[in-house]
Amino acid sequence: MHTQETTPAHGAAHPLEPTDGPLTAEELQLAFRNRGMPLEAMRYDLTTTGLHYLVVHWDIPHIDPTTWQLAVGGHVRRPLRLTLDEIRARPPTTIPVTLECAGNGLGRLSPRPVSLPWLGEAIGTAEWTGTSLRALLNEAGLLPEAVEVVARGADRGLQGGQDQTYARSLTVAEATRTEVLLAYQVNGQPLPPQHGFPLRLVVPGWYGMASVKWLTSIEVTDQPFDGFQQAVGYRYQQHSDDPGQPVQRIRVRALMIPPGVPDFFTRRRYVDAGHVRLTGLAWSGHGSVKRVEVAVDANWADAALRRPIGAFAWCQWTFDWEARPGEHELRCRATDSTGAIQPLAAPWNYQGMGNNTAQRVTVTVK
Amino acid sequence: MHTQETTPAHGAAHPLEPTDGPLTAEELQLAFRNRGMPLEAMRYDLTTTGLHYLVVHWDIPHIDPTTWQLAVGGHVRRPLRLTLDEIRARPPTTIPVTLECAGNGLGRLSPRPVSLPWLGEAIGTAEWTGTSLRALLNEAGLLPEAVEVVARGADRGLQGGQDQTYARSLTVAEATRTEVLLAYQVNGQPLPPQHGFPLRLVVPGWYGMASVKWLTSIEVTDQPFDGFQQAVGYRYQQHSDDPGQPVQRIRVRALMIPPGVPDFFTRRRYVDAGHVRLTGLAWSGHGSVKRVEVAVDANWADAALRRPIGAFAWCQWTFDWEARPGEHELRCRATDSTGAIQPLAAPWNYQGMGNNTAQRVTVTVK
Repeated sequence: MHTQETTPAHGAAHPLEPTDGPLTAEELQLAFRNRGMPLEAMRYDLTTTGLHYLVVHWDIPHIDPTTWQLAVGGHVRRPLRLTLDEIRARPPTTIPVTLECAGNGLGRLSPRPVSLPWLGEAIGTAEWTGTSLRALLNEAGLLPEAVEVVARGADRGLQGGQDQTYARSLTVAEATRTEVLLAYQVNGQPLPPQHGFPLRLVVPGWYGMASVKWLTSIEVTDQPFDGFQQAVGYRYQQHSDDPGQPVQRIRVRALMIPPGVPDFFTRRRYVDAGHVRLTGLAWSGHGSVKRVEVAVDANWADAALRRPIGAFAWCQWTFDWEARPGEHELRCRATDSTGAIQPLAAPWNYQGMGNNTAQRVTVTVK
Repeated sequence: MHTQETTPAHGAAHPLEPTDGPLTAEELQLAFRNRGMPLEAMRYDLTTTGLHYLVVHWDIPHIDPTTWQLAVGGHVRRPLRLTLDEIRARPPTTIPVTLECAGNGLGRLSPRPVSLPWLGEAIGTAEWTGTSLRALLNEAGLLPEAVEVVARGADRGLQGGQDQTYARSLTVAEATRTEVLLAYQVNGQPLPPQHGFPLRLVVPGWYGMASVKWLTSIEVTDQPFDGFQQAVGYRYQQHSDDPGQPVQRIRVRALMIPPGVPDFFTRRRYVDAGHVRLTGLAWSGHGSVKRVEVAVDANWADAALRRPIGAFAWCQWTFDWEARPGEHELRCRATDSTGAIQPLAAPWNYQGMGNNTAQRVTVTVK
């Protein structure tokens, strides 16, 4: 069995039609493999590496860093092959980046696309250290016909009936943004295997599918890339035959740390009556967060916003609540600098992408 | 609302009766919060901290290490209060320990206890560094009436209708085993928040519920502890009124790294025909692993065993397989030095504890 060329005409992003039926064993299996960030970890601006959300399409590949090389080729003047030491010797940049899975919230849609059924925890912010993709592409020299840059990882498996290695493209304009990194460290440590060791792409502002892990090659193309993860997966579609629109930047979202203490099984929250400081984080891949509002029982009011920890990272917010005994519903929603605001009802689409519906937390105050 | 004394007469370990019904939203929510170890991580003797399985009963508590102290009290001559620096100044020990959740495999039982529905990935091995609980107890001086040692964590929530902080006990004999540690480092780093920062208990050989995280106190009692997690939770019961037997040491188990490459959604494996080296790990909390067998289509044969990386850690095994085209079922099972062998059919009990049924992996060989 060999890696085949991807052929978008075959296969669908998800194996089954969206359903309101029961959760399947396959969805549960994916939930155990692909970890979310427990929302109480939002108390840390930088997510502990082990709490950052993680998606592994197939298996975590094992890569020997002593023989590994990054191939840079395609429509360039000077194809390159670089060792990890050579990449680490290039000028480094460190930036905090909020990453989110494009499928975050998929499991709350109705009907539910049958895939990895994230409930809202597919988030994390880390400081990534690496070297500029733009500088590397400049060194290789883009030829005039260059239109896209395809990043390919070592991770391999089947999806939609196609045997493939994971690959995604960016336009030349996106790939040469100064903040796009080839990252070899996270939070000051070498990448652990699950986050893309030895080298991954980090594309600030975009949903996580663009930040290809376990990089093996960077290929400059003279045609738009039509690989499975670009042309079939990660699209805003209304039905299976809809070519749809590509999923790109992260939609605005705020999340709160659920207050009080939980019940083990239901995760229902119990809060002491009196003053409660609600806190959380907010982010957008389209610009800066301009406003966060909190609703207690459908009465919306503004939260206080702090500065973000970086241009591509989340910002903290706080909201003071006088909690009175009884059952309450808390919600939060953010607005970004483009004027985009989170919807209160889920923006359904066939693959369940970009569900940034305002979070609801129900609490019992005693 | 205050932490109440636990009263085992109230509450049940799980909120619902075992069922063959569909997976619930609550079970899925627990699966996303409580991460498993992807089985391909078995290629590493020591699990990357971020890939180690993790159970958090309620929320990860936030602890300020500058004000935190460990209280050692109860039936001792000299109650102690120790800062983190004082604990770190004591003689350190580092040992590799395989930990496993007592509920590992619970999700595969029929009927299925309705709790955290682990499928088999609730495992991990790390090097834990800490100081001896035994030495600390010797310093405090056990009084003659001492029978148990209760470890309590800072994590708080409801379970079985009881508001509680997590607490578990060990008999004096178990608590004073030389290998029982008060650990402040994992894999050479300070504990991350999710693994019990700043201090946790590590009880080698026992299922993970004994290794209390976020320690706040060690209390010596003159009566057996009857807290919820001891008297209600973590028991081998046949029905809800059965007092049952306490869950303690880890039952023998072998797991294999699923060979070949997976399909994204089903995780079904695809393997190239020809020679395949199957590898995996095996462990037991009751003694050493003496034998691992692998079955290809129900024909059992011995695997080759390596030495374990420590007295309380797993050992690698390998098995060479000549894979012929078609559909195949692979299984593995271990036998330990007490003669215990993994069952081929699941050993059902009411709470779904200790399900060490032999793993099955179905593969398509092309």
